[in-house]
Amino acid sequence: MTTFVNVTNMARWAFDTGIENITSGMLRYLADDFRQWDAFEKVPRVASHSPIGVIELMPISDSREYSFKYVNGHPSNPARGFQTVTAFGMLADVDNGYPTFVAEMTILTALRTAAVSALVAQRLARRDSRVHALIGTGSQAEFQTLAMRGALGMESLRVYDVDPRAMEKFRRNIEPLGFDIEICSSVDEAVLGADVITVCTADKQHATVLHDAQVVPGVHLNGIGGDCPGKTELEARILDRSTVFVEFEPQSRIEGEIQQMAPDFPVVEFADVVRGIHPGRTSDDEITLFDSVGFAMSDFSALRYVRDSVAGTHYFDRIELIAEPDDPKDLFSLIVPSLKPVS
Amino acid sequence: MTTFVNVTNMARWAFDTGIENITSGMLRYLADDFRQWDAFEKVPRVASHSPIGVIELMPISDSREYSFKYVNGHPSNPARGFQTVTAFGMLADVDNGYPTFVAEMTILTALRTAAVSALVAQRLARRDSRVHALIGTGSQAEFQTLAMRGALGMESLRVYDVDPRAMEKFRRNIEPLGFDIEICSSVDEAVLGADVITVCTADKQHATVLHDAQVVPGVHLNGIGGDCPGKTELEARILDRSTVFVEFEPQSRIEGEIQQMAPDFPVVEFADVVRGIHPGRTSDDEITLFDSVGFAMSDFSALRYVRDSVAGTHYFDRIELIAEPDDPKDLFSLIVPSLKPVS
Repeated sequence: MTTFVNVTNMARWAFDTGIENITSGMLRYLADDFRQWDAFEKVPRVASHSPIGVIELMPISDSREYSFKYVNGHPSNPARGFQTVTAFGMLADVDNGYPTFVAEMTILTALRTAAVSALVAQRLARRDSRVHALIGTGSQAEFQTLAMRGALGMESLRVYDVDPRAMEKFRRNIEPLGFDIEICSSVDEAVLGADVITVCTADKQHATVLHDAQVVPGVHLNGIGGDCPGKTELEARILDRSTVFVEFEPQSRIEGEIQQMAPDFPVVEFADVVRGIHPGRTSDDEITLFDSVGFAMSDFSALRYVRDSVAGTHYFDRIELIAEPDDPKDLFSLIVPSLKPVS
Repeated sequence: MTTFVNVTNMARWAFDTGIENITSGMLRYLADDFRQWDAFEKVPRVASHSPIGVIELMPISDSREYSFKYVNGHPSNPARGFQTVTAFGMLADVDNGYPTFVAEMTILTALRTAAVSALVAQRLARRDSRVHALIGTGSQAEFQTLAMRGALGMESLRVYDVDPRAMEKFRRNIEPLGFDIEICSSVDEAVLGADVITVCTADKQHATVLHDAQVVPGVHLNGIGGDCPGKTELEARILDRSTVFVEFEPQSRIEGEIQQMAPDFPVVEFADVVRGIHPGRTSDDEITLFDSVGFAMSDFSALRYVRDSVAGTHYFDRIELIAEPDDPKDLFSLIVPSLKPVS
């Protein structure tokens, strides 16, 4: 039997544990895995594009464990009552290939994306960062907000979304949790005085959500919305002025903001910062840009974190996903058991 | 909620429906899908190799449905009490990216592999084929045997396996079902007078299970064991004498028996036979070889067949795999429901 964390259990576990506690805990798993970056077998995710969306498989493994995530991205879904992104994933044992753990990952992807953003901001944002601007207040926004507070203590928020109802939803969800929130009427207004700017919209096209003139020296940009070929959010000139950090360069060249730039445009793999190979931010005037697309390693970290966290609790079920015949060469007897020898 | 066919339900459905009925039914789905071959987005499967095994993801889609299978291959597993191959898979709706159907596929892979072999043999083996030789009597053998009877009426079996216990298991399972079975002490003996030879062993290396001298004119070879880079079963000279049929050429060049041959060694995609583009067998002396590695399209067909077959029955459960928030932009409220507005 395979351990399975369904949506209800993931939600209960997250509520009982606390989102900031989870992103903090996940941050340690992420940092550990970034440290062993070279040990992973890494490939760009396998994407299947249709005219209105994408379905992706994101596999990765080290010498002991294998994980993959199934995830879709359909920007027009919310208008039809569906979520833009849904996901599930699993862990398997490299030694025998058997799945060991399956989990819903719609919620978990939001948690892990926020934890990655927080880990990166902790290393790259200015130490005195206080104001967090969010452009886009969809599904990911509350998670980003909490993870950033957990990592950097930022409680002052400035938000903008083209959809006023999404902003109101965000305020309703996040204000009771002790944040000081300013609902803005434009991106210009939202970025005013911001130390960290999270850009998190969902459009399957090149959109210029953030313009060059809106980015002042010293800011940390957390760009998590542009994550598909043909889908970007930032004006290219911003990238020219920034030190650009990515997860896995071969995938980011295809999917990230840097798809707008020349193939040799300089980028830093964030793992190099964690491993002390790259210094990260070197001055208070530097613009640091995390051009995040979402990489399989962070799902690997997140799945292992949940698996370890729910062990010994009641936050999981067991599902019969994998056949277990008594004789491993006798699958047939699982179907026709009456023919088994009487023992 | 997502429909889920677990191992027990798959086994019960297969028992109640009858394996030959299933492979016959699946054969129609396979043929329909081979006919729309050009409509599929096809990629070689994504393999992660470790020193002792492989873990693969096999995605495919047409304009309406997407499927993938997770499958491992670990030849040393049975000696440790595990199966060589285990699998599960799913269907999703291309339009919104939501998973619609999840199933165990350890049993289902055996059924679909047998159905593909049967469909191919029906088109390529001599009409008067009566004797079926099986080299290798592991997990797949009974399924292959029944599917071949369903498709071609072959009830006379000659079998050989290096493991006498595996042969005894096969006899115990298959003799009560009306077959005439000859347990042989060598490959030479097993192939004597055979019209169809199924080679189905599991070794993660180049092994010469079948030699050139053992293959007489007119035979149909069903080669399903060689399916990994560095894993083959047939002496190369057999390929030179045969018309070689494959599933999806780019994947077969990497994984099939033809990896032993030059990159321009001529092969026929089996879809071309189904679509009438290639005539298939053209004489009673021709050796036809199905160099099967297992392709994602047959999983797509098999999953849709099971999904349609179990609809309205009791052979499935529902699992909460995908989050369904009331407001698609408000994932957060699934975790912190107390903050929802009172309606």
